[in-house]
Amino acid sequence: VFHDVAYKAKDRNDLLSGIDEFLDQVTVLPPGEWDPSIRIEPPKSVPSQEKRKAPKFPNGSTPTGEALKEEGHHAGPELQRTGRLFGGLILDIQRKAPFFLSDFKDALSLQCLASILFLYCACMSPVITFGGLLGEATQGRISAIESLFGASLTGIAYSLFAGQPLTILGSTGPVLVFEKILFKFCRDYDLSYLSLRTSIGLWTAFLCIVLVATDASSLVCYITRFTEEAFAALICIIFIYEALEKLVHLGEVYAFNMHNDLNKLTLYSCVCSEPEKPSNETLRVWRGMNKSGQDIAWSNLTVSECLKFHGVFHGSACGHHGPYIPDVLFWSVILFFTTFFLSSFLKQFKTKRYFPTKVRSTISDFAVFLTIVIMVLIDYLVGIPSPKLLVPEKFEPTRKDRGWFIDPLGSNPWWTLLIAAVPALLCTILIFMDQQITAVIINRKEHKLKKGCGYHLDLLMVGVMLGICSIMGLPWFVAATVLSISHVNSLKVESQCSAPGEQPKFLGIREQRVTGLMIFVLMGMSVFMTSVLKFIPMPVLYGVFLYMGASSLKGIQFFDRIKLFGMPAKHQPDLIYLRYVPLWKVHIFTVIQLTCLVLLWVIKASAAAVVFPMMVLALVFIRKLMDLCFTKRELSWLDDLMPESKKKKEDDKKKKEKEEAERMLSDNASVHLAYGEANLDFPVKTLKYSLDPSVVNISDEMAKTAQWKALSMSTENAKVTRANL
Amino acid sequence: VFHDVAYKAKDRNDLLSGIDEFLDQVTVLPPGEWDPSIRIEPPKSVPSQEKRKAPKFPNGSTPTGEALKEEGHHAGPELQRTGRLFGGLILDIQRKAPFFLSDFKDALSLQCLASILFLYCACMSPVITFGGLLGEATQGRISAIESLFGASLTGIAYSLFAGQPLTILGSTGPVLVFEKILFKFCRDYDLSYLSLRTSIGLWTAFLCIVLVATDASSLVCYITRFTEEAFAALICIIFIYEALEKLVHLGEVYAFNMHNDLNKLTLYSCVCSEPEKPSNETLRVWRGMNKSGQDIAWSNLTVSECLKFHGVFHGSACGHHGPYIPDVLFWSVILFFTTFFLSSFLKQFKTKRYFPTKVRSTISDFAVFLTIVIMVLIDYLVGIPSPKLLVPEKFEPTRKDRGWFIDPLGSNPWWTLLIAAVPALLCTILIFMDQQITAVIINRKEHKLKKGCGYHLDLLMVGVMLGICSIMGLPWFVAATVLSISHVNSLKVESQCSAPGEQPKFLGIREQRVTGLMIFVLMGMSVFMTSVLKFIPMPVLYGVFLYMGASSLKGIQFFDRIKLFGMPAKHQPDLIYLRYVPLWKVHIFTVIQLTCLVLLWVIKASAAAVVFPMMVLALVFIRKLMDLCFTKRELSWLDDLMPESKKKKEDDKKKKEKEEAERMLSDNASVHLAYGEANLDFPVKTLKYSLDPSVVNISDEMAKTAQWKALSMSTENAKVTRANL
Repeated sequence: VFHDVAYKAKDRNDLLSGIDEFLDQVTVLPPGEWDPSIRIEPPKSVPSQEKRKAPKFPNGSTPTGEALKEEGHHAGPELQRTGRLFGGLILDIQRKAPFFLSDFKDALSLQCLASILFLYCACMSPVITFGGLLGEATQGRISAIESLFGASLTGIAYSLFAGQPLTILGSTGPVLVFEKILFKFCRDYDLSYLSLRTSIGLWTAFLCIVLVATDASSLVCYITRFTEEAFAALICIIFIYEALEKLVHLGEVYAFNMHNDLNKLTLYSCVCSEPEKPSNETLRVWRGMNKSGQDIAWSNLTVSECLKFHGVFHGSACGHHGPYIPDVLFWSVILFFTTFFLSSFLKQFKTKRYFPTKVRSTISDFAVFLTIVIMVLIDYLVGIPSPKLLVPEKFEPTRKDRGWFIDPLGSNPWWTLLIAAVPALLCTILIFMDQQITAVIINRKEHKLKKGCGYHLDLLMVGVMLGICSIMGLPWFVAATVLSISHVNSLKVESQCSAPGEQPKFLGIREQRVTGLMIFVLMGMSVFMTSVLKFIPMPVLYGVFLYMGASSLKGIQFFDRIKLFGMPAKHQPDLIYLRYVPLWKVHIFTVIQLTCLVLLWVIKASAAAVVFPMMVLALVFIRKLMDLCFTKRELSWLDDLMPESKKKKEDDKKKKEKEEAERMLSDNASVHLAYGEANLDFPVKTLKYSLDPSVVNISDEMAKTAQWKALSMSTENAKVTRANL
Repeated sequence: VFHDVAYKAKDRNDLLSGIDEFLDQVTVLPPGEWDPSIRIEPPKSVPSQEKRKAPKFPNGSTPTGEALKEEGHHAGPELQRTGRLFGGLILDIQRKAPFFLSDFKDALSLQCLASILFLYCACMSPVITFGGLLGEATQGRISAIESLFGASLTGIAYSLFAGQPLTILGSTGPVLVFEKILFKFCRDYDLSYLSLRTSIGLWTAFLCIVLVATDASSLVCYITRFTEEAFAALICIIFIYEALEKLVHLGEVYAFNMHNDLNKLTLYSCVCSEPEKPSNETLRVWRGMNKSGQDIAWSNLTVSECLKFHGVFHGSACGHHGPYIPDVLFWSVILFFTTFFLSSFLKQFKTKRYFPTKVRSTISDFAVFLTIVIMVLIDYLVGIPSPKLLVPEKFEPTRKDRGWFIDPLGSNPWWTLLIAAVPALLCTILIFMDQQITAVIINRKEHKLKKGCGYHLDLLMVGVMLGICSIMGLPWFVAATVLSISHVNSLKVESQCSAPGEQPKFLGIREQRVTGLMIFVLMGMSVFMTSVLKFIPMPVLYGVFLYMGASSLKGIQFFDRIKLFGMPAKHQPDLIYLRYVPLWKVHIFTVIQLTCLVLLWVIKASAAAVVFPMMVLALVFIRKLMDLCFTKRELSWLDDLMPESKKKKEDDKKKKEKEEAERMLSDNASVHLAYGEANLDFPVKTLKYSLDPSVVNISDEMAKTAQWKALSMSTENAKVTRANL
C-alpha cells in the first residue's frame, strides 16, 4: 500500500509525476536540514542502504554550521586552543615527530629531483634580486651575498624542523619596504642601521615566540576561502605583473633605435666625447683622477670608461643614456615568451598521447628545468649578450666594515633597545600574516596532505631564524606564496594511467623535507657554482616567474567567477555554486572580492606598503560583514574550502539517487506485485535514501527464477513451468 | 525453439556466450559479403526492421567493388566517359549553369568578406614573390607586374566560368623550374625566349583543349585517397618548409653580430672604404662613372652607394656583405611566430566560452585578417625597419623592350613553332596533374558540396587562359593546393550553437563565385594600393603561410597514421581502420606512403623538378601495386574517401545493434515464455538485423498489462490478478 501518493494516483503517469514533485521538494532541502523525525523504515529486502543511513555532515551550512566549517576547513585538532602555554606547539611536535623519518624516505623519487632543480632555479633569482635591491637601499650594508646566506640558513633550518616543510621561504615586498624606511630613518637621525635592525629583529623574534606560546595561530581558522583567494590572487598577479614589468624594464636598459635607416648604417656611430661645459661634479671627478679634459683620449673610451669620466655620447646611434643596444631587447622578448610557452607545453605533456606514461610524466615533472636548460643552450649558441644571472663569487660580507655578527646596541643610545619594540610589533603582524596565510593555502584540504600541519611549529621556526638572521645581519625570510604553491604543484602525485583525454586523478602530495632542504643547500653552495650560473639569462628566469604566477592562478575559484562576467548564461560551466546561488549574487560576491583585491594592490604599490598585512587582516572582517547581505547557505556554497570537483561529485550522486529512486519505485512496484506480494508499506519519503540500484533488477530476478529454469528444460515442460507461476 | 544455439546451451550463460560467438562471426563479415541465402524471417511482432532489410552499399569493398569505389569517391556522373567529343564538358556546363545566379546570391555573408580579405593577403605575397623570382631568372622579361596582371586576369576568368570556383589559382614551383630551363636554353641557342614561350603556351593550351574534348579528366577517378593525401601532404610540408626557410633566409640578409661586447659599442662602426686592390670589374665601373678611387668621399657613402661604387666595408660592426643589421632579424622572428599563434588562437575562438556566438564566429572568420591588421599596427608602432611587401607602383611591362602582346614566332626560325609541341607535352602533364589533383581534393565528399563539380570545364578555363597569358607574355597559373584548401576552410558553414566543448557540426561550404572573383579583382587593383600595402611586413605574411600550411594538414589521415608510430597501443585513438586492420599493416601502409612522399620531395627539390607531375602519376601505379600485399578489405578501410567520423558513426551503430540484439534475445525469450508462448521459431541468424530496441520493452509490456491494472485496483484484487497470469 503506497501511503500519501499511491492512493491518490489515478494511473501510472499520475503516480510518477506525484513522486517527481515530492522528490523535488526533498532535494531542495540541504542535507543538513533534514527532519530527523522522518521515519526511515527500510524493507528487509534492501540491505545495501544501511551504510548510507546517517549521512554525516556532507557539505552545506547546517544548524551546527560554525563547528562544521571549522572541521571542514583547517582540519580540527591542529588549531584548537589548548589553553596551556606552548600547548599547540607541543601537540604540533607530537604530531609531526612520528613522520620525521618518513619525511626523508618518502623523497626517493625522480619527481623530487625535478622539484629541487625547478625550485632552485626559481628561488635563486628573487633572492639575488632582493639582495641587490636591499644593497641599493642600504648602501651595501645588506646585499646579495647576505641575502643568499640568510635564505640558505633559514631555509635549511625551516625545512628540517618546521611543521609544514612544503612551504618555501622567500623575501617579500613589505619586508623590503620596511627595511628601506628603517634605513632612511637611521640616516636621518644618525643611528646605526644594522644595530637598530638587530634589536628590532630580536624583539620580533621574541614576539613571535609569545604568539607561539599563546597558541595565537589558532586564529587562522578565521581565514576563509574569501580571504585566502583574494590574498593568493593578489600575490599571483603581482608575480605576473613583476615578470612583465622586468621585461619592460629591459626595454629601458637596452634601448633600441626605433628609426634605423638600414641604408645609412655605414654612417651610424656613437662615440664618447668631452662634455662641452663640464659641470662642477665632473670637474671634481677629473681632479680626483688627476686628469683634465684634454688628457683623455675620448674617442677611444668604452661605454663604462666614458661613464666613469662623465663623458658625453655623441652620434646617430646614441640613445638617452648611451649607445643604442642592438638585438638584446628583442632576443630577451623571444627568450621570455619561449620559456613561458615551452614550460607550459612540457608541463601538459603528461596528458598527450605520445610515448609511454613513464616518459611523459618524467618530462612533465622536469618541464621547467628542461626549459631552462634548453633556453640556456639556445642563448649560448645564438651569442647575443642578454642579461645574465650574476651570483657573488666570494663568501664575505659585501662591505668590509661589517662582520657576520652584529651588536644589537652598537653605537646607538641604550634606549633604542627598548623603543625597537614598537616597530617590532608592526613587523610581527607582517611576519605572522604573510607566514600563516601561505601556510593555510598550502595546508588546504584540496592538497590531501596526510602528515598534518603545524602552524605553531612553523611560526616558532620563522621566529627563531629571524632572531638569528638579525644577529648575523642577514635579511628576514618568511613563507613565499607563489614559490610555495609551485613547490606543492611540482610534488603532486597523480594516477599513473593518465591516458589521453582522461584527467589524471590527483592522489596527493609527496610530503617530505628533502626537496626544501636541498633547494636551500644548493642555494648556499651557489657561490661555488658561479661559473655555471652565469650562463642563465635573466629573461628566461622572468619567463619562469610568469609561468609560476600563471599556473598558481589555476584552481582559484575567484578567477572562475570573474570569467563568468564574459560568458553568456548558456555557456557557463556547470559550477556547483551556480546550481544553488543566483547568478547576480555570485557576481556581487565577485565584485566585493575584486574591490578588496584592487584596494590591496593600491596599498601594496603605494608608500603605505608596510600596513599591507593589516589590510589582509581587514579582509577577514569584510568577510564577516558579508553575512549581512548573503544567507548562510549562499556563503556555504561560495566561500567553502571543499574543492569544486568533490562537491560536484556529491551533488551528482544525490541527483542520481533521486533518479534511481524514481526508476526503482516503478520497478519495485511491478516486481512486488508480479510476485503477488502486497507488503509495500515503507513510506515514500524514505525512497530517496533507502532505494539502491543494486537492490532489485527485474530481469535478474526473473532470470533466476521461473523463466530460465524453464529454458533449460525442454519445450514440453513449458506448460508445467507456466503452471508453477 | 532456438535452432543451432539454444539446444546445446546448458544454462543461460552458456547460451549467451554461444550467441556472442555467433554474433562475432557475423560482425567480421563486411556488410557487402552477407550471404543473401540466409533466411530473414522476421516475426510479425517486429515491424521496425523493414527499412533496414536491404542495406544498400554501405562502406567496404564488395564483389562490385570498383563500381562502388567510383560512386563513393568522386560522385559518379561528372567523371563518366560520355564517348562523345566534349561530352563531359557539355554535361559540366549543363550541371553548373542552373547554379550560376545562386553563385552570386549565396555570397551575401560576412564570412565571404572575411574570406576575401584573408585570401587576398595570402595570395598577394606568393604572386609577387614568384614574379620576382621569375624576373631574376628571365632578366626582367617576366616580372612582378606581369605576374600580378596574369594572376588577376586568369583568376577573374576562372572564378567566373570554371566548374569549381572554390579552387584558387596560383603559381607553382614546377612552372618556375620549367621557365628557368627554357630561358637558359634560349640564351644558349640565341633564341627569343618570349616568342618560344608563347608558341609552347599555345601548344599547351591546344593540348589541354584536346584533353577536354576527349573527357580525359575522367581518369581522375583513379586518384585515390592514397595519392591525394601524399600529394596534399607534400604541398603542405613544402608550404611550411618554405615559410621557415624564408625566415632563415632573413637571418642571412639581416645578419646580426653574434659577439657583441656591449661595453665596446662606442668603438663599433662599419664605414665604407676604398678597396685596396680594385679589381678590373671595379675599375670598369669607376671608368663608367667617370671617377677614380680618390674622387669618391668613401667614408660618407651610404650602404647602397658603397655597393654601387664597389667599396669595401670596414669596421668591427661589419658582417660579410655589409654592416650588421640590428634588431630586424629578431623582430621578424617575433612577428612571424606571433602571427602564427595569434591567427591559430583567433581561429579557435569559436569554441571558447566567452562572448555571444555571433561575436565569436565573426572573430573566428576574420582571424587571419585581424591578425594581419594587428601585426601591421604593432610593427608600425615599434618602428623597426622590417622587410615589407613591395608592390609595383606602375602598370607597365617591366622591360621597355616588350609590349603586352608577344608574337609566337618573333625572331625565331619557323620550325620552332612545330618543335614547341614537344616541351608543350611535358607542360600539359604538369598542368593537368597540378590542376586535377587539387580539384579532387577540393571536391572530396567530406566537403559536402551541393553544386557539383566540373573537371572538364575547369581544365578548359585553365587551358584557354594559359593561351591568353602566353600571347600576352604573362606567367601561367594553375590550381594552388594550399591556397585552395585555405579558401574552402575559410568558407566552412558550421552549426551556430557551437557551445564550448561541443564540436560545432559541419554543415557545408559556402559555394559561390564572388570570393574568388573579388580576391583577383583586388589583386589586379593592388597597383593602386601600394601606399597601404607597403606597411605589411613580410614576416607577417610568412607567418600566415605557416598557419595555412599547418591548418591544411588537419584532416589528412596520413598524418594521423604517422602519429601512431609514437603512441603506445593503449593510447591510440579509436580510429575506424584500427578496428579492422592489424596495426603492423597500417604501419606498412604508412611507411610506403611516407617513402613516396620523401621521393617526391627529393624530386621536387632536385634539378628534375619538371618531371614531378609524372612522379605524382606514378603514385597511382604504386597504389595499384599495393593490391598485392593488402587485401581488398584492408585497402577499403585505409584508402577510403569517406570521412573518419561518418564511418565510425556507422560502425558504432552496427555495434550497438549487435548489443541490443543480445539484450533483446534474453528479454524476448523471457517475455515470450512469461506469456507462455512457445513460438520463438525465427532463426537466431537473423537476430542481429531483425531485432530492434524499440520493439519490446519488458517493463513497458508488463506495465501495460497485468501489474498496472492491478495497481489501480485495490490490494484486495491482487490475488485475482495473479490468477490471471
